[in-house]
Amino acid sequence: MTPTMQQGVLGAPLEQSPRAGDFAIVETARPACPEGGVLVQLSHVSMDPYVGARLRGRHMGEAAPEPMRDAIPGHGVGVVAESRCAIAEGTHVHLMGAGWRQYAPALEGEVRVIKPGALPPSVFLSALGMPGLTAWAGMTQLARVGAGDVVLVDAAAGAVGGAVGQIARARGAARVIGIAGGADKCALVRDTYGFDACIDYRADSWREALAAELAGGISVHFENVSSELLTLALTHMKPYGRAVLCGLAAHYQSDAPAPGIPFGLIIGKRASLHGLVVYDFYDRWDAFLAECQPLAQAGRLVIAEDVADGLAAAPETFERLMAGRNRGKALIAL
Amino acid sequence: MTPTMQQGVLGAPLEQSPRAGDFAIVETARPACPEGGVLVQLSHVSMDPYVGARLRGRHMGEAAPEPMRDAIPGHGVGVVAESRCAIAEGTHVHLMGAGWRQYAPALEGEVRVIKPGALPPSVFLSALGMPGLTAWAGMTQLARVGAGDVVLVDAAAGAVGGAVGQIARARGAARVIGIAGGADKCALVRDTYGFDACIDYRADSWREALAAELAGGISVHFENVSSELLTLALTHMKPYGRAVLCGLAAHYQSDAPAPGIPFGLIIGKRASLHGLVVYDFYDRWDAFLAECQPLAQAGRLVIAEDVADGLAAAPETFERLMAGRNRGKALIAL
Repeated sequence: MTPTMQQGVLGAPLEQSPRAGDFAIVETARPACPEGGVLVQLSHVSMDPYVGARLRGRHMGEAAPEPMRDAIPGHGVGVVAESRCAIAEGTHVHLMGAGWRQYAPALEGEVRVIKPGALPPSVFLSALGMPGLTAWAGMTQLARVGAGDVVLVDAAAGAVGGAVGQIARARGAARVIGIAGGADKCALVRDTYGFDACIDYRADSWREALAAELAGGISVHFENVSSELLTLALTHMKPYGRAVLCGLAAHYQSDAPAPGIPFGLIIGKRASLHGLVVYDFYDRWDAFLAECQPLAQAGRLVIAEDVADGLAAAPETFERLMAGRNRGKALIAL
Repeated sequence: MTPTMQQGVLGAPLEQSPRAGDFAIVETARPACPEGGVLVQLSHVSMDPYVGARLRGRHMGEAAPEPMRDAIPGHGVGVVAESRCAIAEGTHVHLMGAGWRQYAPALEGEVRVIKPGALPPSVFLSALGMPGLTAWAGMTQLARVGAGDVVLVDAAAGAVGGAVGQIARARGAARVIGIAGGADKCALVRDTYGFDACIDYRADSWREALAAELAGGISVHFENVSSELLTLALTHMKPYGRAVLCGLAAHYQSDAPAPGIPFGLIIGKRASLHGLVVYDFYDRWDAFLAECQPLAQAGRLVIAEDVADGLAAAPETFERLMAGRNRGKALIAL
């Protein structure tokens, strides 16, 4: 009898931002180990905000997963259960095409061997995974943050935002300021991620609080949320500041175009803006880990995790992620 | 009897873009040579599009000139007529605070000694003046143009745009494409400035012609005109292209804000945008001249001149500049 496994799928094509009831957990055949590749028993799968758009076929031209058939997309980590290539069984690996399922097949070139050591493997989906690589690329390859920089980042309680601040700090930034929604998230940003300050954009008079915090001006900004927040950040920028444009989380669930960025403000501030697509930095993964794995091991790069324990709990956790109510990196532990 | 001179002033406060009739040429006292400075007999004064806004107090917070009193602003070149500092009489100098007048006083630190050699001094108001410095800063300090780059610039028949293309070429750009308004300007851009192509934005189907010309994509763009043209250029950009944001000539005469630049397009193209304010690069003037004066002497950096012969002809030339009907750098020869 063919072995089976659990898999998370869409119940029906999506018209709007996914809710828990849009998902189904089905029993399906366990994939075979491909020639020249491995079958990975996944221990953790990531849930990422962009997948909310991807599920409707609205992320970088990629097709939506077929309802009741394709696993919901997600990166994963796990252990090689079967191998038909040079990677030994029992090896820890990271793979992009994991998905909401217990086992995933991959060719040898599609997995990265990881060496967790004393770190939990799930760290390779947050601080040492795509969110960490995104933050590292923005801070070190585009904004080139260094000693004396004053850094602002929004969605600072998220995995990317949290890593941005901690990597900037490790590179010598003088001050790191976050923006997040709610007192709980701001406490996480300050107390766990070690930011100097965090402004709660759900509080009254938060713009005044931000202006007071940024009275000396910022030199680096990392934008995760919206063009409105980028424009606000630019108004607080010192001359020759750098802004990394990474994401528009506030617009992932909307069909309306984001407002544009004022041309005159960019000139007036002599600002440099850099668009960031993390996929472009895969080939610098080794350089990223060389810098950031020691930071994580030393407890200087930490990302909280919001974990669904098993696939059955994944839909509710994903809905919470879409509503911005997650606290730390959203993951499924299998 | 105190010696007098001619001076160009505003006849009355301006409400809109200046026309020839808004100016007056008056006879006024010749300024004295200041202690620690010089009195310059001006040979040429530049006319710049931003002055249209400046005359209404709408350029970088600078006050509008007082009607019937202050000289219309403009940079100038001339010869030291009197000196009360270390600069000898007869020395050729460039000064920012020249204005529409025959003589201008300046402190020693406010003038730059120039050595025209075989070049006409007016070149230091165009290819080797602020327009050239603007182009050089954008191409070499911000976009860092080099071998293989494909460069697009609008307002290419203007002094800045023309210098952008020629400096990019000298730095090894593979192709240089201009956008200009009208067949005459496009001929200037191609035949005199040596661009590979120039698209006439007043022609039918110019967007299609531009798309065909840019089928291979651009890697560097220099924006002089509007955020709409910048957005169009970004749509033709290769990944990791660089755009310099220099001016918004199309908006200098309007009170409406320029449309914003799409955030998603910057990310999608992995573009870098750099705001440029030429004032910031004064301290690199020597490096600019070291690179560009030899180019000008070799005929590889040439800017056409649209010259008003005497102050009496200046108002009409300025109106033509405001209407975009100038052909080359607008100057007053005194």
